[in-house]
Amino acid sequence: MSSSLPLRGVVPPVCTPLDASGEVDTASLARHVEHLVSGGVHGLFALGSSSEVAFLTDRQREAALRTVVESAGGRVPVLAGVIDMTTPRVLAHAEAAREAGADALVATAPFYTRTHPREIIRHFRTIRSRIGLPLYAYDLPVSVHSKLSTSLLRELAGDGTLAGLKDSSGDEGSLRRLIVELGGRHGRAEGPAPSFSILTGSELTVDAALLAGADGVVPGLGNVDPAGYVRLYDAVRGGDLERAVKEQERLVELFGMVDAGPEDEMGRNSSAIGAFKHALRLLGVFTHGTTAAPQIQLDDASVAHVEQRLRGAGLLPVR
Amino acid sequence: MSSSLPLRGVVPPVCTPLDASGEVDTASLARHVEHLVSGGVHGLFALGSSSEVAFLTDRQREAALRTVVESAGGRVPVLAGVIDMTTPRVLAHAEAAREAGADALVATAPFYTRTHPREIIRHFRTIRSRIGLPLYAYDLPVSVHSKLSTSLLRELAGDGTLAGLKDSSGDEGSLRRLIVELGGRHGRAEGPAPSFSILTGSELTVDAALLAGADGVVPGLGNVDPAGYVRLYDAVRGGDLERAVKEQERLVELFGMVDAGPEDEMGRNSSAIGAFKHALRLLGVFTHGTTAAPQIQLDDASVAHVEQRLRGAGLLPVR
Amino acid sequence: MSSSLPLRGVVPPVCTPLDASGEVDTASLARHVEHLVSGGVHGLFALGSSSEVAFLTDRQREAALRTVVESAGGRVPVLAGVIDMTTPRVLAHAEAAREAGADALVATAPFYTRTHPREIIRHFRTIRSRIGLPLYAYDLPVSVHSKLSTSLLRELAGDGTLAGLKDSSGDEGSLRRLIVELGGRHGRAEGPAPSFSILTGSELTVDAALLAGADGVVPGLGNVDPAGYVRLYDAVRGGDLERAVKEQERLVELFGMVDAGPEDEMGRNSSAIGAFKHALRLLGVFTHGTTAAPQIQLDDASVAHVEQRLRGAGLLPVR
Amino acid sequence: MSSSLPLRGVVPPVCTPLDASGEVDTASLARHVEHLVSGGVHGLFALGSSSEVAFLTDRQREAALRTVVESAGGRVPVLAGVIDMTTPRVLAHAEAAREAGADALVATAPFYTRTHPREIIRHFRTIRSRIGLPLYAYDLPVSVHSKLSTSLLRELAGDGTLAGLKDSSGDEGSLRRLIVELGGRHGRAEGPAPSFSILTGSELTVDAALLAGADGVVPGLGNVDPAGYVRLYDAVRGGDLERAVKEQERLVELFGMVDAGPEDEMGRNSSAIGAFKHALRLLGVFTHGTTAAPQIQLDDASVAHVEQRLRGAGLLPVR
Repeated sequence: MSSSLPLRGVVPPVCTPLDASGEVDTASLARHVEHLVSGGVHGLFALGSSSEVAFLTDRQREAALRTVVESAGGRVPVLAGVIDMTTPRVLAHAEAAREAGADALVATAPFYTRTHPREIIRHFRTIRSRIGLPLYAYDLPVSVHSKLSTSLLRELAGDGTLAGLKDSSGDEGSLRRLIVELGGRHGRAEGPAPSFSILTGSELTVDAALLAGADGVVPGLGNVDPAGYVRLYDAVRGGDLERAVKEQERLVELFGMVDAGPEDEMGRNSSAIGAFKHALRLLGVFTHGTTAAPQIQLDDASVAHVEQRLRGAGLLPVR
Repeated sequence: MSSSLPLRGVVPPVCTPLDASGEVDTASLARHVEHLVSGGVHGLFALGSSSEVAFLTDRQREAALRTVVESAGGRVPVLAGVIDMTTPRVLAHAEAAREAGADALVATAPFYTRTHPREIIRHFRTIRSRIGLPLYAYDLPVSVHSKLSTSLLRELAGDGTLAGLKDSSGDEGSLRRLIVELGGRHGRAEGPAPSFSILTGSELTVDAALLAGADGVVPGLGNVDPAGYVRLYDAVRGGDLERAVKEQERLVELFGMVDAGPEDEMGRNSSAIGAFKHALRLLGVFTHGTTAAPQIQLDDASVAHVEQRLRGAGLLPVR
Repeated sequence: MSSSLPLRGVVPPVCTPLDASGEVDTASLARHVEHLVSGGVHGLFALGSSSEVAFLTDRQREAALRTVVESAGGRVPVLAGVIDMTTPRVLAHAEAAREAGADALVATAPFYTRTHPREIIRHFRTIRSRIGLPLYAYDLPVSVHSKLSTSLLRELAGDGTLAGLKDSSGDEGSLRRLIVELGGRHGRAEGPAPSFSILTGSELTVDAALLAGADGVVPGLGNVDPAGYVRLYDAVRGGDLERAVKEQERLVELFGMVDAGPEDEMGRNSSAIGAFKHALRLLGVFTHGTTAAPQIQLDDASVAHVEQRLRGAGLLPVR
Repeated sequence: MSSSLPLRGVVPPVCTPLDASGEVDTASLARHVEHLVSGGVHGLFALGSSSEVAFLTDRQREAALRTVVESAGGRVPVLAGVIDMTTPRVLAHAEAAREAGADALVATAPFYTRTHPREIIRHFRTIRSRIGLPLYAYDLPVSVHSKLSTSLLRELAGDGTLAGLKDSSGDEGSLRRLIVELGGRHGRAEGPAPSFSILTGSELTVDAALLAGADGVVPGLGNVDPAGYVRLYDAVRGGDLERAVKEQERLVELFGMVDAGPEDEMGRNSSAIGAFKHALRLLGVFTHGTTAAPQIQLDDASVAHVEQRLRGAGLLPVR
């Protein structure tokens, strides 16, 4: 499938269903891949933050990735997150991901430890040269606590280290500067395929990102409504920005499901992942809405709130 | 002029020219207001961050604001920044701004001291009720070190405390949620005028922000090329997004002038303001490119870099 | 009084009593200076963070400072905070402070705007050369959002720009490195007076800071119990560290008064200042416990909690 | 060895020697344990931040821990860091550490993901109940990006979840409040052994921390000069604070070795670990000074600087 890389389109970070004991529920996960592929997505990002990669043991990561690869069955490419603190630990995950059949890797800069930009560059180059799969940089300052600079990305795009960027930095101005430096929207869109894919993780402003020249989106909410994101993507590609804005606004309202649970009783992270997982349960895809330890589970009122948002967005029949 | 409030359009934060001794150069400032108004801007924001408000003494703030108000002569409304640490100090600036003829005020949350959201709400309500001018909230976490939450803004928009928001938070997702909650792009754009103006300070993604439903933009770079931002605004309003993107990309390249000076020898803030001021000097608007103490001045190589960007963007003839 | 500078000893940041309308209550302030001086303090720091300097208008700052200077009457030196965003605004406060009779100035690095270390150095040098009073650097990253580096402080100590440091950074390791570089505890303590005073703002670890070689302390809680801090200081100077630790532990328990008010209903800043002010009211020094706008006032339960801590520490009779 | 827990004394975080290929150099590590134990340390902390735990693969972690346990041979207790992002991953490390013979575990709060305090409490309780070894909380906001609050620690100390705290937060005021709440220095020091060990990671202010009532110290620099830290500890315990301060000041000067390498060419983390490892090589303990990927290695000038500090501190003969 790596022929279809670098990527364009909708590439959801695949939520990882768990059973009551906290183990990967592979049957639900296989159903979920069907849900996503039949929704028209252009790729799958396994083992990302929305996949609870930070919570999965190595054994669970492997089980989840193998299930996604097998269920995808070559219909769309599978990107695998290799999220860990530093180069040696990331390399171990990367070897396991290659073994499991991933088409590309997604890695952050080192975290927990403080590293210099020159060390971050060495990190990405080492992963690329040792593993031999296309490599995407994952810019997620909220987790990694450092930002990949435009000059660092330009350097690693220019020498072929990186096949692309998953940008969840929220720094749209820097992203725009990078796009313009790489040829601008028109220069990039007119070629056969970009040599460097720019995927935004900003799921609430996809219309804007695509207008600016991003190649695609990695929307957590795309787990719940993949077809909605595909319609949004197609609308922009087809030049119908009015329709794109309307679709985006519908998805913004649907996203309100993450306000589940009072803010002072559970983490925002837990409530967002919990909301997506319960939504998928309500849609008949997942068997459980369980999130991994030590996260607090959604209470009944929160689940009712999730259900209400699904009805509001037309994903469940209004009673 | 408050009849034209709440605002839509291009509202540049007016740079404050200084003479060699660091005093406000009112002759240059009057020329600059002409430069902006003749460029088609829809309002002027005096005493904002790009105006070096943090560096101006109270006497200098008054001189700058009076010059802008007089030079504008009612042709466009003038918003005045009332930037200080807490309510009592902001109120003193607000009274001076009303006296000087400002049409509206722009205030941040308290800074230097740590305040609770309930205290921030009291802050804005007190300013609004004591001064009686339309009040814009200025969300600038990079300076203020706190973010105005969507729920806080919704509360203060709903009860009439705020006439609008100048959003320089860079948090486009939260801004989008706010826009959708206030009626979405279409609901807002179709009325006679929004009851709550949303102005973005993200000067590199104006096409995207306007597409999403923002009412206008407060671009620092609009000091240098006001007509460019007006063309960009008009293109989006007229539905020609292709042209908007091209104009935005030209402005992104022009913005590269802020990379003046090596990063390890002067602050980024100083290099950006210095670049705008030298550009205005090269365009014949300002007499000096001086920035206020303790900022380091651009060196000759940096000024040459600014000049090159002006030529690249067609604002100076290519030699 | 500048003959007694550089300083050693206990130098409380003087709380500013306000009347019901929010104006400076100069009668209470004069009583408070007596309370402090009769408690044995070695200096007074007017217009610091605990003085609510961020909330006082220029007029109120002047009223407070003049009252402190007049009430001190030359018995102890008066340091004046000149807290504002940048050099020109700080210079205006510094001139007013000199006029009002301050013996020394206390300035932070610029805030709100981002400045480079070379610009921060220019900032302190300009203040020192323009005003001619001894200048203390105030390192308060929680408010200023930058930290004064050891190398910057060493440079400004070495060239005579700074007479001392008020360190509220909480970075005791860096402070220790600075002390060792300036001669270590013994080298410093044995001379007639340090050429560079190091005053800690860490009011809960004064025994430790003095042991390490700090010259004195600027304790917010010293407003409430100046004699306690003087006993603590004298115990360390006299080599009785056991007594110092016991006194410090009593003051740590007294400090528990700042936990007034539920954390989710008012700012921590407001509750700490409110607690000190109500304690002074209960001790008969202040007429009101009012804090400045927009701070939320302590409720009755919180005031009762303050009273209980005063009784626990032996400052009010146990009922 | 768990009879000697909870701990008092000097417990260095054991540096992990690597060979030229980046694998654990177990021969050097065995020599290092001798170096430390013969220096008089009271415990060993394997797999901490100074051990480059963030850089070691699971296989390397196991090799390092087994070597430390075997070399210690029951002479001092061995604490094992179980550093990973969330509960399930930490549990996997904890099982491996128990298997390898660790006497106690050291865990941080979750990182990379954002967790609520209630979730952090669940995290520690789950580790404690599943593994059955004494558990120390590791408070390291510079890596974990959250701070363990005094109330959270008090709750987990009170219910027996935690056997102690390794505090590298640098927040000495909060630590002092915790100590006072747990009985104060005298109440704690007079009992047979504390039920909750407080170990500071602030290696430059150990005299101060012990004076305040900390039970011990986990000094990175203790790898290089264990006997120096033991003398410092003994001096405080013996009431000779003058000697303690002198020993601490000598260690502060020795610590200057971490300023190896220009700040703008390598991370501060890398230069500190690299300095310790090269110092151990120069002392004949390690065969190589290599640090793990992607860290940049010290250059010759930096190694010369390290050597000079060793001579200055009397650890190598002055030439």
